[in-house]
Amino acid sequence: MNTKPKVTLVGAGPGDPDLISVKGLKAIERADVILYDALISGELLDHAKVDCVKIYVGKRAEQLSSSQDEINSLLVDYARHYGNVVRLKGGDPFVFGRGGEEIDYLRKHNIDTDVIPGISSSIGLTGLQQIPLTYRGISDSFWVITGSRSDGSISPDLDIAVRSNATVVVLMGYGKLREIVALYQQNNRGNLPIALIQNGSLPNEKVVLGRIDNILDESQEKRVGVPAIIILGEVVAKHQEFSRIKQQALAL
Amino acid sequence: MNTKPKVTLVGAGPGDPDLISVKGLKAIERADVILYDALISGELLDHAKVDCVKIYVGKRAEQLSSSQDEINSLLVDYARHYGNVVRLKGGDPFVFGRGGEEIDYLRKHNIDTDVIPGISSSIGLTGLQQIPLTYRGISDSFWVITGSRSDGSISPDLDIAVRSNATVVVLMGYGKLREIVALYQQNNRGNLPIALIQNGSLPNEKVVLGRIDNILDESQEKRVGVPAIIILGEVVAKHQEFSRIKQQALAL
Repeated sequence: MNTKPKVTLVGAGPGDPDLISVKGLKAIERADVILYDALISGELLDHAKVDCVKIYVGKRAEQLSSSQDEINSLLVDYARHYGNVVRLKGGDPFVFGRGGEEIDYLRKHNIDTDVIPGISSSIGLTGLQQIPLTYRGISDSFWVITGSRSDGSISPDLDIAVRSNATVVVLMGYGKLREIVALYQQNNRGNLPIALIQNGSLPNEKVVLGRIDNILDESQEKRVGVPAIIILGEVVAKHQEFSRIKQQALAL
Repeated sequence: MNTKPKVTLVGAGPGDPDLISVKGLKAIERADVILYDALISGELLDHAKVDCVKIYVGKRAEQLSSSQDEINSLLVDYARHYGNVVRLKGGDPFVFGRGGEEIDYLRKHNIDTDVIPGISSSIGLTGLQQIPLTYRGISDSFWVITGSRSDGSISPDLDIAVRSNATVVVLMGYGKLREIVALYQQNNRGNLPIALIQNGSLPNEKVVLGRIDNILDESQEKRVGVPAIIILGEVVAKHQEFSRIKQQALAL
């Protein structure tokens, strides 16, 4: 090995392999080892060198069992033995990607670290659907919250978010949709527009639009499953299909 | 013209031209016209076709004067006369980029629209500094807020954010730093870690770390100016240089 041990955390973006950054793609091309997650496109891995070692360390975000300790050790071991390691993660490494824990562990073991950000699905998947996260006069801000805390509860941040004017994006929270709907209803926001995006940016993408009061029925009818993101806010009504849905609802 | 009129909003990312997405770069390569903002790298424009028409429509985010109406008309005119127009914006088109207004206007004029998301500086610049926006046990969420509302006031969302546990990122808010610091101090959060990043991801990047109670002095001493983003939250202490700063402070 003639390279100094180093681990580069790379964000692969929200799904479509063309949504990785140019810099991220270059890092893949140079990597001696790639440790990659679930939901990483095979097309991205095809850009690696012929002799690059590719290791799948994926766990679905919705699983509670974790092998984060194992991943941490693998990163150190591979960096020491092969040199240039890329840790390829869906979305952005620091948006619920546990990238911070990996960086801490690597620093503790004196391995150099680098980070190449990615397009978070919170921003990228809403953007592809032409739902603007912010809009003058409608929303000054957006708030991205995890639906999967380590203890299984929903984040107390949601109790505050429901009373704010922010566009709220919940990642890894589809399993908590019923609880989230109940929370918004308790706060008299049953009329708030909401969108669900499953498999965003991929050929099998599924989008469901509605309001808090009817989204559970809609999601059941359209058979939405994981992985899906949830967007809550008036800006959802800017989706091109939203007014059509509204007309339908009025006609009922 | 043999192309159907179309405008593609493309996010160029936070500054470094290599942080654009592969898809965004391909859109630039195919464009007949590019309307680009301030802070867009010249290197990106070099990827355009030789006969591509490149038009600067930039205004600095900190200026109050706006020619958004003019930009909207230009988009429609160029799409109708040239076909394939790329609207190239810093960061992501829908994160305070007024992309939503452009999409609305284009739809009203029956021009097809497409969106290619970008890495928002809120996520990208913190990531490059290895400040994790979220971290298990420290922060479940991050909240991105504009510091520049159209009427010049700071967003009421900040009054709520200061009482939440979210990592808060303020974009285009450096001119309001004094007000923001006062708000955090009124809420007994003078000890909260805070970072300022000016010209992030560029060769002249400047980073200042501190706590609410000393950040005004620090920023003055380091001569920070616009454009700069503000990050507030315990995760800022994860920055590699933060503990060194803490030691210095204790030694005083």
